[in-house]
Amino acid sequence: MRVSVFRRAHFNAAHRLHNPNWSDQQNRAYYGKCNNPNYHGHNYELEVRVTGEVDPETGYLIDLGKLKKIIEEQVEERFDHKNLNLDTEEFSELIPSAEHICYVIFNILREHLDDKYELGVRLYETPRNYVEYPAG
Amino acid sequence: MRVSVFRRAHFNAAHRLHNPNWSDQQNRAYYGKCNNPNYHGHNYELEVRVTGEVDPETGYLIDLGKLKKIIEEQVEERFDHKNLNLDTEEFSELIPSAEHICYVIFNILREHLDDKYELGVRLYETPRNYVEYPAG
Amino acid sequence: MRVSVFRRAHFNAAHRLHNPNWSDQQNRAYYGKCNNPNYHGHNYELEVRVTGEVDPETGYLIDLGKLKKIIEEQVEERFDHKNLNLDTEEFSELIPSAEHICYVIFNILREHLDDKYELGVRLYETPRNYVEYPAG
Amino acid sequence: MRVSVFRRAHFNAAHRLHNPNWSDQQNRAYYGKCNNPNYHGHNYELEVRVTGEVDPETGYLIDLGKLKKIIEEQVEERFDHKNLNLDTEEFSELIPSAEHICYVIFNILREHLDDKYELGVRLYETPRNYVEYPAG
Amino acid sequence: MRVSVFRRAHFNAAHRLHNPNWSDQQNRAYYGKCNNPNYHGHNYELEVRVTGEVDPETGYLIDLGKLKKIIEEQVEERFDHKNLNLDTEEFSELIPSAEHICYVIFNILREHLDDKYELGVRLYETPRNYVEYPAG
Amino acid sequence: MRVSVFRRAHFNAAHRLHNPNWSDQQNRAYYGKCNNPNYHGHNYELEVRVTGEVDPETGYLIDLGKLKKIIEEQVEERFDHKNLNLDTEEFSELIPSAEHICYVIFNILREHLDDKYELGVRLYETPRNYVEYPAG
Repeated sequence: MRVSVFRRAHFNAAHRLHNPNWSDQQNRAYYGKCNNPNYHGHNYELEVRVTGEVDPETGYLIDLGKLKKIIEEQVEERFDHKNLNLDTEEFSELIPSAEHICYVIFNILREHLDDKYELGVRLYETPRNYVEYPAG
Repeated sequence: MRVSVFRRAHFNAAHRLHNPNWSDQQNRAYYGKCNNPNYHGHNYELEVRVTGEVDPETGYLIDLGKLKKIIEEQVEERFDHKNLNLDTEEFSELIPSAEHICYVIFNILREHLDDKYELGVRLYETPRNYVEYPAG
Repeated sequence: MRVSVFRRAHFNAAHRLHNPNWSDQQNRAYYGKCNNPNYHGHNYELEVRVTGEVDPETGYLIDLGKLKKIIEEQVEERFDHKNLNLDTEEFSELIPSAEHICYVIFNILREHLDDKYELGVRLYETPRNYVEYPAG
Repeated sequence: MRVSVFRRAHFNAAHRLHNPNWSDQQNRAYYGKCNNPNYHGHNYELEVRVTGEVDPETGYLIDLGKLKKIIEEQVEERFDHKNLNLDTEEFSELIPSAEHICYVIFNILREHLDDKYELGVRLYETPRNYVEYPAG
Repeated sequence: MRVSVFRRAHFNAAHRLHNPNWSDQQNRAYYGKCNNPNYHGHNYELEVRVTGEVDPETGYLIDLGKLKKIIEEQVEERFDHKNLNLDTEEFSELIPSAEHICYVIFNILREHLDDKYELGVRLYETPRNYVEYPAG
Repeated sequence: MRVSVFRRAHFNAAHRLHNPNWSDQQNRAYYGKCNNPNYHGHNYELEVRVTGEVDPETGYLIDLGKLKKIIEEQVEERFDHKNLNLDTEEFSELIPSAEHICYVIFNILREHLDDKYELGVRLYETPRNYVEYPAG
């Protein structure tokens, strides 16, 4: 009985899209309003998908309380109410695009989940723009 | 022209997570609040996905009115406003976790759908916790 | 600067609508599926509205962190994952209709809020059925 | 770093399901209310999924501003506030079922996207009925 | 114990905004795309609010099953999958703007509700545009 | 025929809650994570309510296309992808709490609306926290 279980979480953060190897003009032309030097922000909504075999003794794929705690400790505490560019190690060098944030969160959670589980992450930057890693 | 068509439905039910082979203490420790002997409940939201070839004469993969009726008769009438543990055969022995409920609904619908269709079921226990069977 | 501030919360519970002064037949006829003797349940979604004057020094009407904590301690801990009829004092005698639950939550919160605030409560029993007290 | 990026859009349109090779009676029997000769309508909600490799220099899979513009120019301007049967070439002969509309939009967008991207389209006819092409 | 109870419903319809006393040019200039002579359509979402005193014997303001049935018979059957301009008496002369549709639905429901109840209607033409009558 | 018409819009912004008359320690104690000196951000969702008499000739209370344009030009262009504290005149001195942002938007829109209309503004800072001005 192979199932996927999903858990949603969220965090609010500020960010700026800027490539330090480009001129300011290039950055403005490419990233538009997202290049604002004073930052802007989002309510990020996160969907974590864990896939594997249900344990017939418990009826659970994974204890959702534990998964919730991992997401809180590893993702929410790290990024919530933060400036991704200035306050986090992960994006001190990496451009905090939705694609990169989704990929970084995948890698953080991957380390804290048993290898028997497959993992997927979807990150909503707004209700109209979102990203999934790995691609389905 | 191979497409997936989705139909949503819902039902409200009470349940309790409890493994009769364990002590009460073990059950409380593992299932926490979900082990409440007097039950708690949810608004279950169901998403049924049917996949196959579109009939070029009708433009339909499947008549959604018929699919809606199958879901109403086979799932909603069976589980809506019920205590899953006490009022249903399906969960008289099987622990009614979201994983198991999703799997049971898949099997019920599978019997009532033509073999030419592929089937998938997603069950939302809350807007933040949900399950998909089979895994994508 | 008089504003209303809203905070949402939720809890999952089982309940049964049953008037002990009526016959079983009367109860079934009036409450229909909601009279199921084995209970059914809901994901209750709660919207708390607090109205008053903004403090110009802080920019806040009320510290939402404190309001969130009051709701968690006074409403969620009391009702979440409970059987309203069996596990709560509030509904040992009172029929736990959405109207009554909304009214009870209003009275609980009213006691824990400073008198300078006006209070309103909206309770969603399902996304299609909800109640507001006091009436607008 | 292979990801999927999603963008949502919407348009409002009128349509009628009717097969000109059938009698009026057959059409009414098969399509029911959707066969109304005077049309009915929907708020169509569109989810476009683009899959490929993230460009490490920009952190983007695709410039979402450009994708948004393609969807506006190629889908919204073509179908928004239109009668699909009478006002569009695409459905002058093809029955405008949700399945067909989804397939037509896929083909329109496919022509305007670089071949290096994989494409998927989900079309919501109502919040409870939707279609995905190609099937996942 | 004075409360408001809300019930949601929906219907899909086609319409056209056109004032027969104006020239075609005036109509196009004023109503824009909504003046399309071939109609366009919407998923109308309806929120009905009923206000009054809770009956202490039942815990109900109004039997929501009965309210649901009134809405189905009086509103959904009348307008669902219809062309409001061509298929309904109500809008044969009256321009079917969201404001007017909301007002018409209020008057239909008012006739079928006991005078002891206060009534309010909110009509969503899209998730971003909606109307309430009477004004709060 | 007095109705309210609603229009939704949104913008994404960064902000910081900080009272310059307090010590850093007082600010951190009072505003918690919202006092982060490097800012954090939100997807602000705005609901504008306009109330008045429907024009019987047009069926409109107000041309929603014009209202949409006023909101875009006066609110979205001013605040979208901005740092409210650093990039806007409105919050160079005023603490950008949700209460104050809602009040400021009300005053901006009030200047651009005909006096015959009553105005209300609701601002969602997150889907669980929101503010309304003036209070209902």
